[in-house]
Amino acid sequence: MTSRALDIVAIGDAIVDVIATCDDAFLEQHKLPKGSMQLLSTQQADALYGAMGSARETSGGSAANSMAGFAAMGGRAAFIGQIADDQLGTIFAHDMRALGVAFDTAPLTNGHPTGRCLILVTPDAQRTMHTCPGAAHQLAPEALDETLIRDAAILFLEGYCWGPELPRKAMGRAVEIAHAAGNKVAFTLSESVCIAGRKEGFQGMIDGGGVDILFANEDEALQLTGTSDLDGAIAALAPKVPTLVLTRGAAGALAYEGGVCTDVPAVPVREVVDTTGAGDLFAAGFLAARCRGHGTDRQLMTGGIAAAEVISHFGARPIADLAELVRL
Amino acid sequence: MTSRALDIVAIGDAIVDVIATCDDAFLEQHKLPKGSMQLLSTQQADALYGAMGSARETSGGSAANSMAGFAAMGGRAAFIGQIADDQLGTIFAHDMRALGVAFDTAPLTNGHPTGRCLILVTPDAQRTMHTCPGAAHQLAPEALDETLIRDAAILFLEGYCWGPELPRKAMGRAVEIAHAAGNKVAFTLSESVCIAGRKEGFQGMIDGGGVDILFANEDEALQLTGTSDLDGAIAALAPKVPTLVLTRGAAGALAYEGGVCTDVPAVPVREVVDTTGAGDLFAAGFLAARCRGHGTDRQLMTGGIAAAEVISHFGARPIADLAELVRL
Repeated sequence: MTSRALDIVAIGDAIVDVIATCDDAFLEQHKLPKGSMQLLSTQQADALYGAMGSARETSGGSAANSMAGFAAMGGRAAFIGQIADDQLGTIFAHDMRALGVAFDTAPLTNGHPTGRCLILVTPDAQRTMHTCPGAAHQLAPEALDETLIRDAAILFLEGYCWGPELPRKAMGRAVEIAHAAGNKVAFTLSESVCIAGRKEGFQGMIDGGGVDILFANEDEALQLTGTSDLDGAIAALAPKVPTLVLTRGAAGALAYEGGVCTDVPAVPVREVVDTTGAGDLFAAGFLAARCRGHGTDRQLMTGGIAAAEVISHFGARPIADLAELVRL
Repeated sequence: MTSRALDIVAIGDAIVDVIATCDDAFLEQHKLPKGSMQLLSTQQADALYGAMGSARETSGGSAANSMAGFAAMGGRAAFIGQIADDQLGTIFAHDMRALGVAFDTAPLTNGHPTGRCLILVTPDAQRTMHTCPGAAHQLAPEALDETLIRDAAILFLEGYCWGPELPRKAMGRAVEIAHAAGNKVAFTLSESVCIAGRKEGFQGMIDGGGVDILFANEDEALQLTGTSDLDGAIAALAPKVPTLVLTRGAAGALAYEGGVCTDVPAVPVREVVDTTGAGDLFAAGFLAARCRGHGTDRQLMTGGIAAAEVISHFGARPIADLAELVRL
């Protein structure tokens, strides 16, 4: 539907997930708040890795997961993120390209390793994440492929990567390029834990008209606006962004656009195994339907189907044939 | 049941599996014989990796998978295998230790990377494997922990790693140490493709009394003995090894011991997803029951249960609680 060479270019953490199961007692013993994302130093990550069970590895990263899903639904996507010149970086780059996502950010060679996210999944399918961002947070404005950003109808940014100074600068520059080219900017808030220290920055970006499409879950919306109920959060955010998308887990999802609220229920899932990537894939589905010119209902429904697929198995990237599931 | 500090010490390839799905056309296009294992150079592996789909990574290696399963069923196990000082080596070592398998082989630092096995799984659940052994085939006799070998009731060796000169020497030395200490030696043939070039070596080892317990599947037994039917293969092998264990996929498994044949059916599986690791986990279950003093029937049954678990999901290591499934 777009006249651009690409539908979306995303900027985010280039991360490999290390996924293990654990019981609630393990989280308590290691003082890990269930459902949260915490940043770890290399030393902390090594200690936690040593304590956790045997794991499986898959490429991850919030916006990168979204692009994996977006491409799987037939979208034309590119990703910009910082890997290192190491084995995990090779895995990340391979998986992006194998999914048809253009990925050409040059690997870093200054000693920062490719980022890892240690993910602990409890029997209730909740994921508790511990990120050692490494090279991912060394993404510099110089690493941006400006042509790519101009050529994509939507620039998609993730909150995790927006925190540290260097990638935040890169993202700020990317927003300027995208808007100057007449493109839209989508932003996904990521984690209420992240928001705490970045609230003013996030609000400044939103207030300054930097964001055309904002994705948030309930917690994130409350945290960002400092309100105690969803209606208050919506009232605070909806006037500031042309499209506001709120995910509510099992309660479904909402979109506010041009003063109109569209509301869909969640897609039923036979067994929820691992909720990692639910928000990432929701955004992917929403944008995939949007880029094909479908209406808001279908955009929300498609997000719901993609999220339902990813929470029905371990790992934050789709396994089933998403294109077949969403039939756009 | 054993008076030794350990039940088993295994020697084998230290490998990280890279698992992707593909269709039959992909195998044909790349001339990859379905169900086989082929050794690849780094260059060949990089080319195949570039062509294959996005993947998930898990620690693998035939004997290492067996030890992972053996420990999961409550056995006391150690593993000897060569990793490199790199990210995949760290993953392999972590997963072994997290499963309770003692693993202390010093990482190699001479530039050979940790071995990888590119595994393509077709919709019929068959796995086609492409191994780039790297450091794994640099295992030298000097890397053996001789005390560990003396302290384990059973020394377990895999055929994949037995082929190249250096690890073959290491294994030969390990057999001498084990037998001098009055321990048993178990050997798993691995892949008919491997056997082709190693037939005389394998036969020499078996004829020389090196093997007390031999694991093989039907194809491997036929290939090794050069016979065209299973009865012929059994007649050729049974007199040479005190315990001969033959797995027959969906047809179940047999053991020949002291002139007696014990035969069990396969354990039914709701959906076979990925047959990688079936033989490895069968050996694990068989030996786990044996080390607890159970009879041959129960040894074969336990092998069948462990194999059934591992073929019901992607990856060659157990996911379900094997100890609960086999109740030894």
